[in-house]
Amino acid sequence: MQQQINRQILLVKRPIGIPDESCFKLVTSAIPEPTNGQVLLRTRFLSVDPYMRGRMNDRKSYVAPFQLNEVLNGGIVGEVVESKSNNFVKGDLVVGSLGWQDYSIAGEKEVRKVNPEIAPVSTALGVLGMPGLTAYFGLLDIGKPKQGETVVVSGAAGAVGTIVGQIAKIYGCRVVGIAGSDKKTKYLIDELGFDTAINYRTAPHLRKALKEACPDGVDIYFDNVGGDISDAVISLINNNARIPLCGQISLYNETQIPTGPRIQPRLLTYSALMKGFIVHNYADRFDEGIRQLADWLKEKKLKYAENVVEGLENASKAFIGLFAGENLGKQLVKVS
Amino acid sequence: MQQQINRQILLVKRPIGIPDESCFKLVTSAIPEPTNGQVLLRTRFLSVDPYMRGRMNDRKSYVAPFQLNEVLNGGIVGEVVESKSNNFVKGDLVVGSLGWQDYSIAGEKEVRKVNPEIAPVSTALGVLGMPGLTAYFGLLDIGKPKQGETVVVSGAAGAVGTIVGQIAKIYGCRVVGIAGSDKKTKYLIDELGFDTAINYRTAPHLRKALKEACPDGVDIYFDNVGGDISDAVISLINNNARIPLCGQISLYNETQIPTGPRIQPRLLTYSALMKGFIVHNYADRFDEGIRQLADWLKEKKLKYAENVVEGLENASKAFIGLFAGENLGKQLVKVS
Repeated sequence: MQQQINRQILLVKRPIGIPDESCFKLVTSAIPEPTNGQVLLRTRFLSVDPYMRGRMNDRKSYVAPFQLNEVLNGGIVGEVVESKSNNFVKGDLVVGSLGWQDYSIAGEKEVRKVNPEIAPVSTALGVLGMPGLTAYFGLLDIGKPKQGETVVVSGAAGAVGTIVGQIAKIYGCRVVGIAGSDKKTKYLIDELGFDTAINYRTAPHLRKALKEACPDGVDIYFDNVGGDISDAVISLINNNARIPLCGQISLYNETQIPTGPRIQPRLLTYSALMKGFIVHNYADRFDEGIRQLADWLKEKKLKYAENVVEGLENASKAFIGLFAGENLGKQLVKVS
Repeated sequence: MQQQINRQILLVKRPIGIPDESCFKLVTSAIPEPTNGQVLLRTRFLSVDPYMRGRMNDRKSYVAPFQLNEVLNGGIVGEVVESKSNNFVKGDLVVGSLGWQDYSIAGEKEVRKVNPEIAPVSTALGVLGMPGLTAYFGLLDIGKPKQGETVVVSGAAGAVGTIVGQIAKIYGCRVVGIAGSDKKTKYLIDELGFDTAINYRTAPHLRKALKEACPDGVDIYFDNVGGDISDAVISLINNNARIPLCGQISLYNETQIPTGPRIQPRLLTYSALMKGFIVHNYADRFDEGIRQLADWLKEKKLKYAENVVEGLENASKAFIGLFAGENLGKQLVKVS
């Protein structure tokens, strides 16, 4: 049965450091009405992503900051419940960047259809969505893996890291994951085929553990976390190493500019490349990426993990949990 | 008149921090005799280069460390005084990587001929040698300058920086140099055509001065120095900025791993690329580079500056002077 109200999650306070529940507020409003060219969507899944933390600061970045007292915004899979567009009919499943709420209005250009026959529709927010594409383009376009090379991925059990490691295996690399629990490292090795994985929380000496895990040094470091973990990996890079910078989750809640050992001398000595990127840099190649990821999924070369929290009312909790490393795989909220 | 002894400069102590004269020793030995396939060279010019500081540490790097109590080694232009090679005759002028001494023996593959009709032979150690090629490949292959972009170069008045800025002007960029004296900044602007230049020693607020000098932000930062200067430039990069890492002279004498603000968050936010390189990565394209640099020189699109110290006995002083920023242009020692 359809709800008669629209619950929404607002950002009501900009977090300083780690966000807490006081930054968010659940409110209700009327269900909006679509006009010509628009559809009304009922949210099925919300995507919960670390990059959203950056948008909570009032600071220039690659996406505009969230506005206070407005609905949070992120990746959504929804079902069309009313269509005033010729491109969509009731029942279509679509994905887009929309509000954290039960019902959204979307222009027909703002969403694209998802085919539920390829894979469960939630994958449009994970392996067949932004995280999958992020892994695909970051690893292949910047990392350029070659057979026999060693690839280290941090945040390895997250939405992006799990895919990075598996693609690197497809390319014939030795793959070493860094994650924050034994459950995660076991999953990476036993389920996803990583050659080995290190629990950075329990390893007595991370650099030493990495050195043992990477006897031939590190050719590619896919960096999701930054900070001390990255320092340890960068201390082991080989000549001509490549470092795709995808995320810096360990630093997102810092309230001052974080400091650390300067990395330029090492990049210089080893003729290494480091490149920041966001997946939208590759927007004109998304079709290629999704097609390839879907093929690998069908061929069972890729597996994916989801960490699903039930209920819109728990979305802020799921977001806060990202920074405690609670998620194994893609963090989602099932809304309906 | 030919000397009858061979003076040599040895490294007798590994410097800790800034090198001083106690690290070096001038000794004499007999003039060596070439055997088949070798030539005996009389040194005309020595090249004095910052990267040599790294080789004075007993540490793995892209070139092997200097050995204690052995002759220092660097770029040399010499004249063949005796040839036991079919490829060279007495009087030929050659360039190669050889000892800091009056006379050297070189295998015929270790040196290449220099044509004194193109430009003074000392340029084989500067604009038509490693520094010129370093500027050429670092700027063009990593920086990829486009018309109208803003290029900042640090160490701008040095052997590499002077060439980087001029090539960037040839490519239609706005060029901003950072150097350590008013004499240098004036030279960059008045003689080399830089759009502006900043004296980092006297600018009351470097970041502010840079911001004024780069109203459209920084698209390419050619980094010769590292440290605080680089922090200021990196704080102003644009989306898709490129940062060729060529040198880190401000850090070469550090005795502990230097720390500073972490740069990864900024590289990530701006999808920026940073890449370390050494000129030898481009060895298979040296002919192309030298040809192009020589053409620009002939067309008067490139000027070069040399800072020549007289006498082998002053070579260590010239080397130490690099770290005080004493040289404008290529630092050379004229030996004979």
